[in-house]
Amino acid sequence: MIRQEQEYYMREALFEADRARIIGEVPIGCVIVWKGQIIGRGHNLREHSQDATLHAEILAIQEANAFLKSWRLEAAQLFVTLEPCPMCSGAIINSRIAEVYYGAADPKAGTVGSLMNLLQDSRFNHQAKVTAGVLQAECADRLKTFFRDIRRRRRKKC
Amino acid sequence: MIRQEQEYYMREALFEADRARIIGEVPIGCVIVWKGQIIGRGHNLREHSQDATLHAEILAIQEANAFLKSWRLEAAQLFVTLEPCPMCSGAIINSRIAEVYYGAADPKAGTVGSLMNLLQDSRFNHQAKVTAGVLQAECADRLKTFFRDIRRRRRKKC
Repeated sequence: MIRQEQEYYMREALFEADRARIIGEVPIGCVIVWKGQIIGRGHNLREHSQDATLHAEILAIQEANAFLKSWRLEAAQLFVTLEPCPMCSGAIINSRIAEVYYGAADPKAGTVGSLMNLLQDSRFNHQAKVTAGVLQAECADRLKTFFRDIRRRRRKKC
Repeated sequence: MIRQEQEYYMREALFEADRARIIGEVPIGCVIVWKGQIIGRGHNLREHSQDATLHAEILAIQEANAFLKSWRLEAAQLFVTLEPCPMCSGAIINSRIAEVYYGAADPKAGTVGSLMNLLQDSRFNHQAKVTAGVLQAECADRLKTFFRDIRRRRRKKC
């Protein structure tokens, strides 16, 4: 996939991240692409749902599975604004997604290059092609701005 | 938790595994205990739902989150018949479950002792206490019998 296409889909993931931000959730968004079509979208909903499993990637994978009526997403590409955590990396392995593109790295919990690389561990029965740093600055800025604004609001309250 | 209590709750997880087996799913079951009460139950539903994320642990965590109206399960114990995969290990980290008890080890995809130990990696922001091998033989037998029966049925068809 050429860089322009990668950035097009990452902008769609950023649009999902903005939907999370608007409702006060940590702004992380994800889309899943299959044959050039977006078949799954998701944004972080942990606080609103009070469900620890509702990360952007899980919701997008569930929507893509429902669209294809199959748990196998072998021909799909996943775009996510932040490097996946262990749960989401595992869901990518379980759904056999072929390619993963992410924006910002997550040095605290990222398992696709930062702390380890679950998606390219040959001991699992599936590996994915990984491209890091797609619209990295924009994806990282969304998070930085979100947490800066939270700190400012807290200071004002004090 | 004393061994008898551990075995009591693992039998409840085995009951969930049997619910999966009856409908033709790989027999894996899970329960989540909080203050001595089962607040989440789940069994593998991947094939029926065609959703790659619907492992026993994910469904049990979602039910427990809904029961407590909180994504935090800090005081909870999780019982599962098979060693968790990366996705479910990640969901355990994300929901801050305190203690994990599993029955059979999974040498192919287990990430709580077999291939690695995600639940006791100090780089993540949560670690869980892990007890392996609770009713190990019964949990492993459920899986062995299931796959043996599938092979027999296939041979009959040929």
